[in-house]
Amino acid sequence: MTVNIGVIGVGMIGQDHIRRLTHVLSGARVSAVTDVDLDRAKSVAENLSDAKVHQSGPDLINDDGVDAIVVASWGGTHEEYVLAGIAAGKQVFCEKPLATTRQACENILVAEQKAGQRQVMVGFMRRYDDAYRAMKAALDAGDVGAPLVYYSGHRNPSVLSGTTDGVLVDTCVHDIDVSRYLFDSEVTAVQVFSPRRSSHANEGLQDPVLVHLELANEMLVVIEAAVNVDYGYDIRGEVLGETGTIELAESSPIVVKRGGQHSGRVPADWRERFIRAYDIEFQEWIDAVAAGHSTGPSSWDGYAAAVVTDACVEAYRTGRKTPVSLPERPALYLEK
Amino acid sequence: MTVNIGVIGVGMIGQDHIRRLTHVLSGARVSAVTDVDLDRAKSVAENLSDAKVHQSGPDLINDDGVDAIVVASWGGTHEEYVLAGIAAGKQVFCEKPLATTRQACENILVAEQKAGQRQVMVGFMRRYDDAYRAMKAALDAGDVGAPLVYYSGHRNPSVLSGTTDGVLVDTCVHDIDVSRYLFDSEVTAVQVFSPRRSSHANEGLQDPVLVHLELANEMLVVIEAAVNVDYGYDIRGEVLGETGTIELAESSPIVVKRGGQHSGRVPADWRERFIRAYDIEFQEWIDAVAAGHSTGPSSWDGYAAAVVTDACVEAYRTGRKTPVSLPERPALYLEK
Amino acid sequence: MTVNIGVIGVGMIGQDHIRRLTHVLSGARVSAVTDVDLDRAKSVAENLSDAKVHQSGPDLINDDGVDAIVVASWGGTHEEYVLAGIAAGKQVFCEKPLATTRQACENILVAEQKAGQRQVMVGFMRRYDDAYRAMKAALDAGDVGAPLVYYSGHRNPSVLSGTTDGVLVDTCVHDIDVSRYLFDSEVTAVQVFSPRRSSHANEGLQDPVLVHLELANEMLVVIEAAVNVDYGYDIRGEVLGETGTIELAESSPIVVKRGGQHSGRVPADWRERFIRAYDIEFQEWIDAVAAGHSTGPSSWDGYAAAVVTDACVEAYRTGRKTPVSLPERPALYLEK
Amino acid sequence: MTVNIGVIGVGMIGQDHIRRLTHVLSGARVSAVTDVDLDRAKSVAENLSDAKVHQSGPDLINDDGVDAIVVASWGGTHEEYVLAGIAAGKQVFCEKPLATTRQACENILVAEQKAGQRQVMVGFMRRYDDAYRAMKAALDAGDVGAPLVYYSGHRNPSVLSGTTDGVLVDTCVHDIDVSRYLFDSEVTAVQVFSPRRSSHANEGLQDPVLVHLELANEMLVVIEAAVNVDYGYDIRGEVLGETGTIELAESSPIVVKRGGQHSGRVPADWRERFIRAYDIEFQEWIDAVAAGHSTGPSSWDGYAAAVVTDACVEAYRTGRKTPVSLPERPALYLEK
Repeated sequence: MTVNIGVIGVGMIGQDHIRRLTHVLSGARVSAVTDVDLDRAKSVAENLSDAKVHQSGPDLINDDGVDAIVVASWGGTHEEYVLAGIAAGKQVFCEKPLATTRQACENILVAEQKAGQRQVMVGFMRRYDDAYRAMKAALDAGDVGAPLVYYSGHRNPSVLSGTTDGVLVDTCVHDIDVSRYLFDSEVTAVQVFSPRRSSHANEGLQDPVLVHLELANEMLVVIEAAVNVDYGYDIRGEVLGETGTIELAESSPIVVKRGGQHSGRVPADWRERFIRAYDIEFQEWIDAVAAGHSTGPSSWDGYAAAVVTDACVEAYRTGRKTPVSLPERPALYLEK
Repeated sequence: MTVNIGVIGVGMIGQDHIRRLTHVLSGARVSAVTDVDLDRAKSVAENLSDAKVHQSGPDLINDDGVDAIVVASWGGTHEEYVLAGIAAGKQVFCEKPLATTRQACENILVAEQKAGQRQVMVGFMRRYDDAYRAMKAALDAGDVGAPLVYYSGHRNPSVLSGTTDGVLVDTCVHDIDVSRYLFDSEVTAVQVFSPRRSSHANEGLQDPVLVHLELANEMLVVIEAAVNVDYGYDIRGEVLGETGTIELAESSPIVVKRGGQHSGRVPADWRERFIRAYDIEFQEWIDAVAAGHSTGPSSWDGYAAAVVTDACVEAYRTGRKTPVSLPERPALYLEK
Repeated sequence: MTVNIGVIGVGMIGQDHIRRLTHVLSGARVSAVTDVDLDRAKSVAENLSDAKVHQSGPDLINDDGVDAIVVASWGGTHEEYVLAGIAAGKQVFCEKPLATTRQACENILVAEQKAGQRQVMVGFMRRYDDAYRAMKAALDAGDVGAPLVYYSGHRNPSVLSGTTDGVLVDTCVHDIDVSRYLFDSEVTAVQVFSPRRSSHANEGLQDPVLVHLELANEMLVVIEAAVNVDYGYDIRGEVLGETGTIELAESSPIVVKRGGQHSGRVPADWRERFIRAYDIEFQEWIDAVAAGHSTGPSSWDGYAAAVVTDACVEAYRTGRKTPVSLPERPALYLEK
Repeated sequence: MTVNIGVIGVGMIGQDHIRRLTHVLSGARVSAVTDVDLDRAKSVAENLSDAKVHQSGPDLINDDGVDAIVVASWGGTHEEYVLAGIAAGKQVFCEKPLATTRQACENILVAEQKAGQRQVMVGFMRRYDDAYRAMKAALDAGDVGAPLVYYSGHRNPSVLSGTTDGVLVDTCVHDIDVSRYLFDSEVTAVQVFSPRRSSHANEGLQDPVLVHLELANEMLVVIEAAVNVDYGYDIRGEVLGETGTIELAESSPIVVKRGGQHSGRVPADWRERFIRAYDIEFQEWIDAVAAGHSTGPSSWDGYAAAVVTDACVEAYRTGRKTPVSLPERPALYLEK
């Protein structure tokens, strides 16, 4: 069975997903597209065999030729499209963020629970990365005992005009989600620290920024977000466990020796570092949809991430440690 | 357009290709299968949606519902099926070896040239591995100057009942092909050396075995094949160039520290090490077939590999350096 | 010229220094020893050629056959012996801590300034370690731009009965000193964090513990002290600079592949990790003494470290960020 | 007790040993020097406290103020000085080569056996290198089972006017000695191979050159000597054992990330790579001499190395595999 997928939002990320669904992965086709910029939607559709162009998200969602929906539009529109997808009884893949306010996320949680089954997967693609999966497997196997501290380094070569809130919400969200994923524990408090600013940071941007997450299991997570490091796209991670450590390794496939150095490559950008994770994420989702259910990061995960990033923004504003409180996790999101 | 593929030979490797064509890659489906064991073919077909079972290779090849052919049967049958595929005007993917005798390979070269276009790709999947591709890119960019020596280590954890000829023909063939690929130069002579035998080697097997290849560009390639190393599946490669070296890096995605050691994983088998290369190899072939042509390692590459492994077998038998001579490379195989 | 050295305190560390001065390094001999346990002093002297045993530190210090003094006794006695050494006009090597109270350190600063020249070197041996020196050289060469954040990991395999104050004062002191050394900047505030406790920690010990240091140059230093990690003695360090990073490398001289892993050795203890640094530290001191002056970490460095560790103890007690204030650095300690 | 050492030959290497004996190590002093260039000897002596200048090697050797002798003169003179040292009943440290002809080496063996005790240590300093010692320890512990193949890479950044014989005799001799040391087995045959020449090699120099050593234990050793690699001084070593491998690790103490690369330092020259091994080598010799005996690589080791390098020169000249035959090892050289 081929899954017919409708894509809402065909900007850079939407087009990349279309390429993936069309030319890389098995079992799916893009049957419909829409975009706030209809001309762009039409131009994208022209390169596809037999994809309808819809005037709006709701039109696309309710198209009988659409089995499942990819939401890759601007964050502010996510709530509407995800709710409509749930209402239409279709599986939805929603790029992060799930929604831009706590209330909006809660509306989605309520709707999904009312529907009685998971219909939403949120695009936290790091959970599909080989290295994080190996780290989680080693943790779960008890290779290093109970985890105590996790260091999560998130380094981008440069940004043009970043804001500190933007870094906390859009960058650190990945470190927050991966911490929740690795350690199966919710965040209970956050604190934000401002080291010496890089002279490469644009005005008004605190770069680098350090975030402490306290987890319910008493672990401390130290996130470093540095978005103008110049040298490459470098994702770091190290767990200190009771009897050992687990670290993400360098990813260069070759070592070159020349000019007095032996060296390997640091990825240039997130695409180079995580392209495989995106492929695996989507393939798992397609396979799940074909089998009639959802998979992977849930609405709950999207909600928890939003609540924690909200707290980070407040903690940065106040300079104080900020508690995070979540309601009890609904049964729908407890199942593995 | 979906490429309809017929698979001849559905043993372990054939079934793995079917899984790949069906569940992993984009743009192809398996429309027909056959096998010397017809029951096996039928049982495989049952798990596919709408795949015919043919009584014989020629039947499958001439099926109008088959656009292209994968030959994954026993080596002795390759010549017949590849020639039939060429005659039928269809693209053929042939697992190595191209054929089991020099004469058989030459028959294929003649037929393909008569047909006037490349119709055969040989399954030397290392050319699709990220690490080898990065090595070739660095070489071609001149990062280390002219290459002088290449060390190619091929280590398997264990074999049940190997023969030295088998190691030279089936194991070293990958090192031979990758050397030809990396350095764009033909082998002119070979010599085989027998170090101290591993006590883990079965009777009659020289393990490890070292092979020297002399290339037309005067490089020396030192191949080590060791098929009972116990510790893992370890593919080594290092180019000594005039101004530097390029080495395959370790592939472990994480580093674990425990018990006084920091350590990474050595792949368990060729599947773990090269599974991505197989995926990329097939996707490139499917894309080429959909566009109406062949790609990748050609009949000439299959032929050259066969001639060199023949020479290795003779060199091992005589203990002497053995010259290798190839005819001039036909024009069909000169184009990039 | 051979420097005649008197050693006060011949416990484990004192005996190790005697071995070093006698059997490893050039240009010095141990001419006198003393200890609170006179029998131990006598037994140590018996293995030396021609070393006097003194009844007390002051006796040893005032012995004409003693050119320079090594203070390796219990911390509480350091002030008295260092002051006596200064008064006697002799060079003093004082194991850390310089003294156990801020007032005692200040007394030493005053005395040394009155004497008009540096006579005291404090045993912060990490400054003599190849790796830290290479890190400092790369920093000073501007290889990674201005430093922004420094991560300093201090991991011991186990302690029998540690106290959190002890970890802050005796363990973190090295990380504090090395931070001051690498970045030529004083600490202005400290904060202490308590992650999930290791079940291997003895009662009453917060392990691991994280310390933030704010430096005058606005850098943030994140120290992790974990003293029951089980897996080895692991000293970590990474500078995040504006355009790159510098990290301490693993130190294993060989890589072993076996049983599905490639692995290197983590040092077993501080001795294995830093033995060379101790040798170099002492050789530089002997050479300086022979040339009539002091070298290396000064009384000021010992004082600053003591003030910062005091602040850490308070910060741990109060749970609050604690400012650190030092007087202006006296001219005597400004020279390079 | 301080060992009084006379140094014959005060060129670059002799002066380096004098520096080491005088300023780095414990328990020795240089009491006499001589050189074919007497003015150079005088100038060196002026920087030493109380060192006699002798007119000739024999004068120095017979000086009562000389306890032990370091021979660092031109290779052609070694036989005479070593024999004279033996005759004088003094311990001799002889830089490699022990002597320049097989006959000369045999004369030394005969004289030393007649004297009834070891009096000669040959300067194969790699045996004192941390990494080789760790490799030998892992081998002897059986960590990787029986060794089967050893790869020994010897790469220098550049030579001004090398000869192939010179590379075989002066460069490969270290790889030959270290192979004998690691595997406790004599060489039984050698063969020399000439890969593509580096365009950086001076006229008449085959660079790189590969040497196969067959050992009595049936191992094969593959030596690569490349003396114009440009990128640094890179000493490689890997043992393939029955159940694993042991490799020399990179030695850079830090890892720097910048400009899209993570990189470590390759040593610039043998001094950087092996300076510690020279220190340890001499300290062990001084300690042995003080205790009244010799230690380390013996005349037998110097002899065996000379016989094997002779065979390499012949093998290069003839292009053929050349057998190596040694007499039985005399009892004097069997003791550990």
